[in-house]
Amino acid sequence: MSGFYSVGVDLGGTNLRAAAYRDGEIREAIALPTRLDHGRDSVVRDLCDAVRSLMRDFAPDHECVGITIGSPGPLELPAGILRSPPNLPGWDGFGLRDAIESNLHQPILLENDANLAALAELRAGSGLHSGLDSLCMLTLGTGVGNGIVLNGEVWHGSNGMAGEAGHAIVEPDGAPCGCGSRGCLEQYTSASAVVRMAKEHSSRLRSMDSLTASDVARMAAQGNLEAQAVFEQVGRALAIGLTSLINVLNLPLYVIGGGLSNAWDIFAPGMMSDLARFSYIYRITSTGNGTSQTATRTQIVRGELGDKAGLLGACLLPFTRSVARGTP
Amino acid sequence: MSGFYSVGVDLGGTNLRAAAYRDGEIREAIALPTRLDHGRDSVVRDLCDAVRSLMRDFAPDHECVGITIGSPGPLELPAGILRSPPNLPGWDGFGLRDAIESNLHQPILLENDANLAALAELRAGSGLHSGLDSLCMLTLGTGVGNGIVLNGEVWHGSNGMAGEAGHAIVEPDGAPCGCGSRGCLEQYTSASAVVRMAKEHSSRLRSMDSLTASDVARMAAQGNLEAQAVFEQVGRALAIGLTSLINVLNLPLYVIGGGLSNAWDIFAPGMMSDLARFSYIYRITSTGNGTSQTATRTQIVRGELGDKAGLLGACLLPFTRSVARGTP
Repeated sequence: MSGFYSVGVDLGGTNLRAAAYRDGEIREAIALPTRLDHGRDSVVRDLCDAVRSLMRDFAPDHECVGITIGSPGPLELPAGILRSPPNLPGWDGFGLRDAIESNLHQPILLENDANLAALAELRAGSGLHSGLDSLCMLTLGTGVGNGIVLNGEVWHGSNGMAGEAGHAIVEPDGAPCGCGSRGCLEQYTSASAVVRMAKEHSSRLRSMDSLTASDVARMAAQGNLEAQAVFEQVGRALAIGLTSLINVLNLPLYVIGGGLSNAWDIFAPGMMSDLARFSYIYRITSTGNGTSQTATRTQIVRGELGDKAGLLGACLLPFTRSVARGTP
Repeated sequence: MSGFYSVGVDLGGTNLRAAAYRDGEIREAIALPTRLDHGRDSVVRDLCDAVRSLMRDFAPDHECVGITIGSPGPLELPAGILRSPPNLPGWDGFGLRDAIESNLHQPILLENDANLAALAELRAGSGLHSGLDSLCMLTLGTGVGNGIVLNGEVWHGSNGMAGEAGHAIVEPDGAPCGCGSRGCLEQYTSASAVVRMAKEHSSRLRSMDSLTASDVARMAAQGNLEAQAVFEQVGRALAIGLTSLINVLNLPLYVIGGGLSNAWDIFAPGMMSDLARFSYIYRITSTGNGTSQTATRTQIVRGELGDKAGLLGACLLPFTRSVARGTP
């Protein structure tokens, strides 16, 4: 044995990615489509085959510290059962932990993907330089994920379902959401929301079938007023959502990641100025003025790890667990 | 020495209450008006005189475990400095901990009043029977306080300013709030908000100078439609605020206390039915159906301790601290 490694998996609604991690780096990675149309048993087989393949390559010389599977939520923990996951249609009530452990014949760590992204940003991204041990992360992707780390540990809540700020209401009676409610943060700050809002704002954009959030961001950067109005709405909705998170949690760091955070320069200025109007806790704590010298500043930053955050968090988790247990 | 006692103080914007606590009960209590017009030094003197008076009565036979002062927030901790507290006008930047400790010549525990109410409900109120160690409390009074206890400990956040859910936005561009924002939960669910909304709904009520929230509650109970509409708005705003708290924190217990919770029977049915529409985490976790047998149910209940919660929490805190330190 010449060292320790971990295996992490990011099970997404579109892609399935697996990686082996050693000495602070991802050493080998596998990417597959998530074949939802073949059924969940088939997806679990693909996933376990990828894990086994990575382990075969590393096993001769290294000891496996642990295997983490990151899954979209809501995921009931510790049972490991999916509950009406919007991005894995038909998987409601599926015992994901049991299915994977039966196939692999060994225990796994199972975690919500946004929680893993939050952990990765804390340990290896935007939290790394500051030495902080608490943060709140929002991942703006197809949906809006949310992970909260308090004092170095993911906050799971009673049933593993904490961190669903994407379904906080920012616009009462607003756009209908897949969760069954209306006006959720996700309906104004996800990539799909940007496309929907762009089509609402402009009849020209409405006719573009293949319009993506990146297209809208590029148009906004080029000065298109309708596209800019969409990102003003993104910034404002994020400011309303962050106001609640900041006033309730008073954490030192809020990280905005996921694909839509590539448009950070477009929506962040509006978001910051709205936030300064909306949250008095942010106003009090965002500058050094008016607070004592021991006070911690509240920072809102863009995630540093891009779309690797979830996979990296999956790889890191077994190491943080074994450190907690006193193993290397 | 025949035992241990604690002293708790509830410093409110209107009343100052102090109590000595021993063997699980409040033994002696002092209530004074908070003489804000005499200046903060004078209020601190009144407060310390009350503490000394209680200690003189108990000192001969008992050992003091600790003194807790509960104060309105935002309160920067551990520094103990008030930050623009809406209910203590002119106290911004006041070093409350230093002022009290200099007067008493001994260390105190200083805590946000809503956090103390949350602790009291957990240890001696609605959380007592369930053996839970986490909850979120909203106190509906002149303003709306919020306290969060996670795994038995008050969640303070970075600067002691966590638990300001009263200033989460439930109605974007809604009623202006003392915190500088608009549409805060407090503007729809506090006693003063009920009076304001009643006057907005009805020209007859608008002319009643001395109208109180209790008056509006009584009218609603007697079938007045305008008063009932006000409490529908209260229930709906609480449901929006609770949706965010439940989806983000996934705690087992949410307690609604404070004076306005006397109108529980009037607003709770609407609140519960709105909540079931707004929060999918509540829907998943509020019934035993569809979750595994190990799942914890989410409960929303009325506080059991009434307006004593804050004072009792102040009395209890020194005992929980000394238990944590291994002292009786």
